[in-house]
Amino acid sequence: MDHVEPSPGVPTTEFAVTVLCGGFGAARFVTGIQALARTSLTCVVNTADDFEHLGLRISPDLDSVLYALAGVFDEDRGWGPVDDALACNDALRRYGDEWFSIGDRDFALHLKRTQWMREGSTLAQVTGRLVRAWGLSATILPMSDDPVRTAVRSGMEWLAFQDYMVRRRGGPTVDEVRYDGAANARPALGVITAITTADLVVVAPSNPVSSIGAILAVPGVRQALRERTGPTVAVTPVVSGIAPARLPEAGRARVRAALMAAMGLPHRADAVARLYAGFIDGFVLDERDAAERGEIESLGVDVLTADTLAPPTDRAALAGRVVQFGLGCARRAVAPVIRRPSAG
Amino acid sequence: MDHVEPSPGVPTTEFAVTVLCGGFGAARFVTGIQALARTSLTCVVNTADDFEHLGLRISPDLDSVLYALAGVFDEDRGWGPVDDALACNDALRRYGDEWFSIGDRDFALHLKRTQWMREGSTLAQVTGRLVRAWGLSATILPMSDDPVRTAVRSGMEWLAFQDYMVRRRGGPTVDEVRYDGAANARPALGVITAITTADLVVVAPSNPVSSIGAILAVPGVRQALRERTGPTVAVTPVVSGIAPARLPEAGRARVRAALMAAMGLPHRADAVARLYAGFIDGFVLDERDAAERGEIESLGVDVLTADTLAPPTDRAALAGRVVQFGLGCARRAVAPVIRRPSAG
Repeated sequence: MDHVEPSPGVPTTEFAVTVLCGGFGAARFVTGIQALARTSLTCVVNTADDFEHLGLRISPDLDSVLYALAGVFDEDRGWGPVDDALACNDALRRYGDEWFSIGDRDFALHLKRTQWMREGSTLAQVTGRLVRAWGLSATILPMSDDPVRTAVRSGMEWLAFQDYMVRRRGGPTVDEVRYDGAANARPALGVITAITTADLVVVAPSNPVSSIGAILAVPGVRQALRERTGPTVAVTPVVSGIAPARLPEAGRARVRAALMAAMGLPHRADAVARLYAGFIDGFVLDERDAAERGEIESLGVDVLTADTLAPPTDRAALAGRVVQFGLGCARRAVAPVIRRPSAG
Repeated sequence: MDHVEPSPGVPTTEFAVTVLCGGFGAARFVTGIQALARTSLTCVVNTADDFEHLGLRISPDLDSVLYALAGVFDEDRGWGPVDDALACNDALRRYGDEWFSIGDRDFALHLKRTQWMREGSTLAQVTGRLVRAWGLSATILPMSDDPVRTAVRSGMEWLAFQDYMVRRRGGPTVDEVRYDGAANARPALGVITAITTADLVVVAPSNPVSSIGAILAVPGVRQALRERTGPTVAVTPVVSGIAPARLPEAGRARVRAALMAAMGLPHRADAVARLYAGFIDGFVLDERDAAERGEIESLGVDVLTADTLAPPTDRAALAGRVVQFGLGCARRAVAPVIRRPSAG
């Protein structure tokens, strides 16, 4: 793969970037980081949306990141590899109500992951095997090998996240969010080191509640983010200044708004920055929402405005700007206690 | 479905036919029986070739019979539904050596069977559910819900049947055949009744060692065949008077010859008749092998010669002739001990 030179100000030696990832938004963002020269990329990925379907272990966010880095992610549909037929999925209808669509090639991945895990491999080991099978240079780590499952309460009913988001199409109101199993989950091998030792940690433009919130709920992760000596920046998942152009994004924005509302937060970039304020040094705001800059800077967080919805051809440039901005924040992060007295 | 009138001499009231089935040969034969008017069809199917692949429970013979009765069996390929793409199968290659091909629509069936069995259903219950999903009027019964597994010894090595037949393409010499688990297997619910109460039992033109031999190895089956008062006929799986025209059949004939040789039998129709002589009243010999008629009649078994390789359009006629012939044998079966003094 040809690599794009990061912007001026970025080190000329190899440097390590760790990205905290959900699915769709992260999948779009990490391809840009991967395209940068001299960048060693580690993705720490949410697994709290994982579930069992047809006896198969499905890890939607791990798969989106894997397929994206492999260059085959179906961004229009929002899941699975491109041009994946649905012959098996359609045949399943004969045998009952199948609400979750899986493409034919995608089934291969779920079958192997499930088989390898039944044979005793951890999710992290299986993910490593899949990464090698696709010949990727990046490292992809599940946030935890232990089961953490996001559930949302709608009135009296608790719904598993996929039930809420896919089966019920994000329709039910959300009154509360919890991360079942998080209290007893351990970060997967390598996660804490990847956060602690990275030259830069980037929080991808992913759902701050169901994706990033779940990663932060794993004991040890938030502390590692607070205590690391290098900088951490977040890219906004919320772009208020544009109407979502395509259905997958519209659905995601609606779900994100509902989950943020359940946390008492408006669906705005500055609310996301506030949520992360305890551990970020910089925030990448979409240029369409530049009016929110002052709000975010008042949290003691540096702000970069950029076109965060850059099309695929411009993503390496976006990533280069984010990295340059992030490493620039580093110079200030040497005394975090002074800068963020409320942190810790 | 339009039903074909059976030949003259066949009862004008409904009558029950039970067919002992392997895969490919049975799949071709049972569609003809299903097409007969007033025929209640029960298939008792070999499950000793079943195996686990990718964590899925595969039942090759049950599936061939199911797909055949549903009118979608891929006879040219010899397995699975017609026009089934291999997108998942091809994608699996990236993750390792996948020696067993499964079509995309076929995966749906394996996924559901595996899921339902993990949820606690027996193989017989799952098979019934699949039969209902396909809207079939026939009954399909696995020979047993208990695991019976055919293994073949090649020199010092015991091979599972699918390893021998698919992975190793029937190449290794076969010195011995055994049915692991058969001694402790119970016939599935309905199997003994289907054999005992049928107006006619037909042994399909299936492998007499790996398919029919496995069914006969289930305790109680051979006794039920010997003690039933109605007639039993077998259709030859061996046609010596023709070179196998197509690869699937050539491979099957080679495997059949190897397994029969391991039992000390020549690959001839009269050897099959001899193998079944303890419980059959009639034998359907291919017209190309009419020279073997006397040999078989000398076993005290009636013989019908017919074109057992009839193309799909002529299979109902073949089935009608077999049924007419079989019910004709019934008149003689009232005193089996006198007719077959060596039986029992």
